[in-house]
Amino acid sequence: MIKIAIDAMGGDNGPTPIIEGLKLALKHDRHFEAILVGNEEELLPLIPSKFKDRISIHHASDVIGMSDQATDALKRKESSAYKAIELVKSGVASAYVSAGHSGASMSLATLRIGRIKGVSRPAIATLMPTITGNTLVLDVGANVDCDPINLLEFGIMGQVYSEDVLAVEKPLMGLLSNGEEETKGNEITKAAYKLLEPLPHFVGNVEGNDIFNGAVDVVVCDGFMGNVLLKTAEGVADTIVTLIKNDLRRSLIAITGAVLMRKVFKNLKLKVDYAEYGGAPLIGVNAPVIIAHGKSNAKAIKNAIFQAIKAADSNLNSHIEEKLKQFKG
Amino acid sequence: MIKIAIDAMGGDNGPTPIIEGLKLALKHDRHFEAILVGNEEELLPLIPSKFKDRISIHHASDVIGMSDQATDALKRKESSAYKAIELVKSGVASAYVSAGHSGASMSLATLRIGRIKGVSRPAIATLMPTITGNTLVLDVGANVDCDPINLLEFGIMGQVYSEDVLAVEKPLMGLLSNGEEETKGNEITKAAYKLLEPLPHFVGNVEGNDIFNGAVDVVVCDGFMGNVLLKTAEGVADTIVTLIKNDLRRSLIAITGAVLMRKVFKNLKLKVDYAEYGGAPLIGVNAPVIIAHGKSNAKAIKNAIFQAIKAADSNLNSHIEEKLKQFKG
Repeated sequence: MIKIAIDAMGGDNGPTPIIEGLKLALKHDRHFEAILVGNEEELLPLIPSKFKDRISIHHASDVIGMSDQATDALKRKESSAYKAIELVKSGVASAYVSAGHSGASMSLATLRIGRIKGVSRPAIATLMPTITGNTLVLDVGANVDCDPINLLEFGIMGQVYSEDVLAVEKPLMGLLSNGEEETKGNEITKAAYKLLEPLPHFVGNVEGNDIFNGAVDVVVCDGFMGNVLLKTAEGVADTIVTLIKNDLRRSLIAITGAVLMRKVFKNLKLKVDYAEYGGAPLIGVNAPVIIAHGKSNAKAIKNAIFQAIKAADSNLNSHIEEKLKQFKG
Repeated sequence: MIKIAIDAMGGDNGPTPIIEGLKLALKHDRHFEAILVGNEEELLPLIPSKFKDRISIHHASDVIGMSDQATDALKRKESSAYKAIELVKSGVASAYVSAGHSGASMSLATLRIGRIKGVSRPAIATLMPTITGNTLVLDVGANVDCDPINLLEFGIMGQVYSEDVLAVEKPLMGLLSNGEEETKGNEITKAAYKLLEPLPHFVGNVEGNDIFNGAVDVVVCDGFMGNVLLKTAEGVADTIVTLIKNDLRRSLIAITGAVLMRKVFKNLKLKVDYAEYGGAPLIGVNAPVIIAHGKSNAKAIKNAIFQAIKAADSNLNSHIEEKLKQFKG
């Protein structure tokens, strides 16, 4: 039975959406148990009796707040994040899920659980929606300054994750650049291109729009670029929705239209709703670590837990180690 | 009377949309003349007699194609782009507009017209739509690898352009980064932050979504990032439109709704349609240079010409020179 350690305290809205999400996950999947890490007194009344055999509580008296320094995470040994990570490190749990301080989770996971052999820097990956499915983009924030070898590792880790966790056969991978030609790129991406070239199913450079048109399964970039483009994509989507809503308010005829189009918008929301994907995996550490958004609702938490289970159920990390050995030279 | 030199041959669809756009511009603005540079035989029959006194033709026998090397542009002295740039260099025309090979236009403008005193590298700027107006983003492709001083210059040039050409009072300017805090950024942007800090109306770091929410008037980034985020934004917008259209096809009720919502979508298109803004100015060269998209329609060309006129009618370049002297130390 897979055991998932869940930081129950870190999210923006406290334990409630975390536990609601866990309940949804427990209903849908009978093959895992959860260890909720956090304030026992606060958590106990929230757990329904029907799940008492599959949920245990591991007490933690401290919580790392969203505005706390990530650099202090290692010292906050009584925090829910620290204690949940320790459960994974000691082997009591096999994966970690948190909607808390993402920097704290990243540094605790990297330093306490440790990196997979051959990985210089773990990367945060995220799924972006396309018309037909989605694209895994990494790194989206763990590593602001990257060298070409970091980008090679991201390419390898992304392809293995796509294959082993997302069940994509022969995932196509591209390097994000300012043009498709091999000569395009900045100094670092041009050097990374040479390193990525020997990898099977590397398609070469891809452009910003290729993230959303399904041209590839995996897109590699540094964490500075990844963070900016994630927020750019959200900004464009929000702006379009706001423009439509503003116009709707102005026009009675359009309101009638909008009612009829409700189903269409609902489908659209389903495809661009990040809660669909749950959290972002930190790939490259010795156990599955899923970092959910601080504002995660129950559905997002449920999907984050499913991602953790799928990863824990796979040979992801040994495959990454093997492939790094083969291609990192 | 302002004279605009227009490369009539370089666009993807030949001279027709260029001349149609010019006709629209001539109708709306009586205070400029155009010099169409290109094949005289081909152009002459396209010019209506009523505009013969305001359009002259400057013959050029060669055209730099979209797939030609930008590095050859300086040798292609009979090309429409080269000859149009020479008209600006010699003072016969006061601005340049082209929908042709953008790399060729950039290098010809930089090397033949020359840079403004104090500018190390000219930058391509583009207007991105927001809910209430638009944001000027630079650089979006001229400079793939940038140092902190380049970014300082982009900030200065962007603010002056915003003030002098776009008529924004006290334009707010931000540095694109992976978080708002001063400590965020990669090595280059952190160093650029320090250089930008003394500039009036510098708000600090901004994030990807701030491009579209109207938080600032000017966003500074390197050309690699700028290119990727431009294409990311287009990709998101295209994906959303496609998702809506796909759903519409499936549902008769939604089609009825869509008819009613036509006006709403038309407004939306107006706001996200890049033709509204015309072309992208190359800021930092000694005369206004507007680079339009190869696929520009007549409306885009009209607006590119208007941008060129506004810039030629302003004190943009002397203001940039002054401000660089003041803040570049």
